[in-house]
Amino acid sequence: MKKAYICLDIGGTKVLGAVFDENLKIVCTVKKKTKAEEGQEKIEERITGIVEELIIKSQMNRESLAAIGAGAPGIINEGTGEIIFTPNIPWRNYNIKKVIEGRFNVPFHIGNDVKMGVLGEWKYGAGKGKENIVGIFVGTGIGGGVIINNKLYAGAKHSGTEVGHMIINTEGPYCNCGQRGCLEAYASKIAITREIRSQMLRGRKTILKELMGEDTTIIKSKVLKRAIDEKDELALEVVDKAVYYLAAGAGSLINIFNPNMLILGGGVFEALGSYMLPALQEKIKRFSMPAVLEGTEIVQSKLGDDSILYGSLALIMEKWGK
Amino acid sequence: MKKAYICLDIGGTKVLGAVFDENLKIVCTVKKKTKAEEGQEKIEERITGIVEELIIKSQMNRESLAAIGAGAPGIINEGTGEIIFTPNIPWRNYNIKKVIEGRFNVPFHIGNDVKMGVLGEWKYGAGKGKENIVGIFVGTGIGGGVIINNKLYAGAKHSGTEVGHMIINTEGPYCNCGQRGCLEAYASKIAITREIRSQMLRGRKTILKELMGEDTTIIKSKVLKRAIDEKDELALEVVDKAVYYLAAGAGSLINIFNPNMLILGGGVFEALGSYMLPALQEKIKRFSMPAVLEGTEIVQSKLGDDSILYGSLALIMEKWGK
Repeated sequence: MKKAYICLDIGGTKVLGAVFDENLKIVCTVKKKTKAEEGQEKIEERITGIVEELIIKSQMNRESLAAIGAGAPGIINEGTGEIIFTPNIPWRNYNIKKVIEGRFNVPFHIGNDVKMGVLGEWKYGAGKGKENIVGIFVGTGIGGGVIINNKLYAGAKHSGTEVGHMIINTEGPYCNCGQRGCLEAYASKIAITREIRSQMLRGRKTILKELMGEDTTIIKSKVLKRAIDEKDELALEVVDKAVYYLAAGAGSLINIFNPNMLILGGGVFEALGSYMLPALQEKIKRFSMPAVLEGTEIVQSKLGDDSILYGSLALIMEKWGK
Repeated sequence: MKKAYICLDIGGTKVLGAVFDENLKIVCTVKKKTKAEEGQEKIEERITGIVEELIIKSQMNRESLAAIGAGAPGIINEGTGEIIFTPNIPWRNYNIKKVIEGRFNVPFHIGNDVKMGVLGEWKYGAGKGKENIVGIFVGTGIGGGVIINNKLYAGAKHSGTEVGHMIINTEGPYCNCGQRGCLEAYASKIAITREIRSQMLRGRKTILKELMGEDTTIIKSKVLKRAIDEKDELALEVVDKAVYYLAAGAGSLINIFNPNMLILGGGVFEALGSYMLPALQEKIKRFSMPAVLEGTEIVQSKLGDDSILYGSLALIMEKWGK
């Protein structure tokens, strides 16, 4: 490898790292649990550990490492690398750029994970050549990214496109962010898990009881997929409900942005896209103005689990003007 | 007058026309009811009649008329001048550009009215120098406009920024557009009038009964203002409710766009801004993420009733590359 780039997808539940070679192909990956509950320093150690592991696993010369890129949840200053606020990891006004650059002595760039995912899809994936894109990524939480006039939209204060926190119902359930009735409070894995647990406590029959066992953490997307494949009544009910509210949120976003393309991504869509996408394409008609909806292609992320990695790579390239 | 521009604000209830001189100052205006219920041809006659009246009233030489600009509700192809869909006037796939240019023999440009209003505020009003702006205009309906990176955002199919049709409550009241729970179904003059009429039928005491009389059309903003000034209980209740839902919609839009500025305009804010703006600035805290809200100035339209006129002027200038 003449040149190598390390890209990180730092999520609320897991960290995925990859080495890209000079042809921008993924050479190897490493995946670890984030264990966000262990606090800022432990997460930091875990991340630098993954970078070290990737350097060793890819057998690169340390000198060939050109840059490190990353996506992480929340409000991130892409210029300074400061994480201002992140909802599912205990980072507040935390400068991760300093830490990583100090440790590895190469440029480090970081952006909001879903923004990076949408940037990746636009540059290398489903959205190539599309001028205006809205991306909704459904995972532990729900994030969004918007491409406007072939450029990632940043917003005034490094935030913006927090589509998971648009209000779907003013008196709806409380969200982690402190608001009520956010899209995230209806259709994220946090919301889906809460609904399933609550229905199981009410004695609803479901194979999810066996599949999830005593594990009290967020449901795994592949577990949900298995239950859907087996036509489990509760799983279908909960996922259909999530799709309905996703359609409401996505429908509003189409009314607001009238984009060329709406891209659905994130862990939930990676696992359940073949079930959820057609359902969403149908239900969204209820919520979008027909003349507006007409111009919008609704597709699934093409880079799948790697979209944030590719987006971090796109960010590195953008910072280099490539 | 060496050079004159005629600009039109074509609304669901009234048409306002103005002559601008070569210094871009308003020389004279004409205002007529739209009478949308009388159909496409009558509205057309009314509009050409207003242009004629403006030419005569301003005493201009017909040769000095350089261009005509306009803003109208709905989805409008700014390039061809075709009105694709308008919710409160019976225009469908209707080419108004041909009609006006055929009649007056000068270039005619038309855009969505609220987009024009926001363009006007950005070029000549409250939003001068702001890179990213979200505008919400509350009148008969609710429309929106967005400036992104110092440019009016158009969307993929001449639509976009239909912020009045974002879903505030999935099971909310039906909206004119056929959806349920749109912002417009809660906080527009249509919604406010429906709520007042319904409460009056239930015997609620209110000075609005006397002020509105037997008139069954949409309430006038100045009538609403008078009732608020006199602290009429029903008027306060209905307007407070509208502000609450406006705060929900505006809060979501701030989470989505993280703009430098949110501009509130339209007839309702022109009349009631001194009451509604501070209330909205407070209530929006409930719905916006604090770190995102922080970077957003929330202000009232500066050009007031003339914002759409100035926006049409800005559109004329933009088409000329000025």
